[in-house]
Amino acid sequence: MKLLEERIKTDGVVHAGNILKVDKFLNHQMDISLFQEMGKEFKRLFADCEITKILTIESSGIGIACIAAQYFDVPVVFAKKTETRNIAGDVYTCKVKSFTYGKVYDIIVSKDFLTPEDKVLVIDDFLANGCAMLGLVQLIRDAGAELVGAGIAIEKGFQRGGDLLRGKGVRVESLAIVERMSEEDGVVFRNQE
Amino acid sequence: MKLLEERIKTDGVVHAGNILKVDKFLNHQMDISLFQEMGKEFKRLFADCEITKILTIESSGIGIACIAAQYFDVPVVFAKKTETRNIAGDVYTCKVKSFTYGKVYDIIVSKDFLTPEDKVLVIDDFLANGCAMLGLVQLIRDAGAELVGAGIAIEKGFQRGGDLLRGKGVRVESLAIVERMSEEDGVVFRNQE
Repeated sequence: MKLLEERIKTDGVVHAGNILKVDKFLNHQMDISLFQEMGKEFKRLFADCEITKILTIESSGIGIACIAAQYFDVPVVFAKKTETRNIAGDVYTCKVKSFTYGKVYDIIVSKDFLTPEDKVLVIDDFLANGCAMLGLVQLIRDAGAELVGAGIAIEKGFQRGGDLLRGKGVRVESLAIVERMSEEDGVVFRNQE
Repeated sequence: MKLLEERIKTDGVVHAGNILKVDKFLNHQMDISLFQEMGKEFKRLFADCEITKILTIESSGIGIACIAAQYFDVPVVFAKKTETRNIAGDVYTCKVKSFTYGKVYDIIVSKDFLTPEDKVLVIDDFLANGCAMLGLVQLIRDAGAELVGAGIAIEKGFQRGGDLLRGKGVRVESLAIVERMSEEDGVVFRNQE
């Protein structure tokens, strides 16, 4: 998606350690007009699919998922990252390793909100190592729901998450795939034409 | 807002310990059509105000804030709850006590995204003790930005947050104010006509 790629080139910053900072428009400050265009693009990409629910994970996936959900006319469920007092015991859960924060956490979705009748589109802001996404896929399978595919804003194509998911037969549509990046030369995108 | 009050009566569940579970439509599964109506109502309530930015706090405020932002045509910034590697050091920060989780955490907003030019509407899903909201107000003041007001989905009118904020001169608009609630009798709303 050219609009997103151009925005990453303009406002994204590459830091050491494979960090691409896009907090000016994607995951701290959020450009809602951009999110609308991204939501329309997800709808175009998955136009052939019946979708009953969008699943994302807190926190930075929520905004993109909610705006996108308007074009699918479905509710959004977000997986929570630690067990909280307000979540009932009846949950699907899975352990996820975070490379960003160097720890393992639980992701949780109430059994009330993922059912065998659901056809689920997963939406998230980033796909890198794929650990969070694989966790969400596991929750969907545990629920007996159907995984329609994954809509990703930015995929780090040089990390293994995309290959891992596609290797498992998951349909992954990424609006921008970073082929390589460096502090000196910035970001180079994979041609998806 | 009648639509939200009716939805709380239908799908909200009161638990011991002043817990109102609304995770079927507000803060775990999210009814985006309802969020659109809430967003329009926030716009109606703050129609007389110039607003340049919506500020919320992760995680459950994000969806409501993003949908509402469409009617104000402004970006959303969400305060993060712990220092992360991806946030630069140049941040406004404040300690907040969570009664729900029984701990103190830091909230953080990058200095890049709150400036003296900003006229800020704060949006959140709940107002109870007001600790998170007072923290956000502090960050806005630290930034030298203008606090236009607070738009709340559900205010627990029997807890002190609303009085505290209004006592400080903050304009608080809550779409539903719970006057009292119990497991036996359910929820009674304050008349805001």
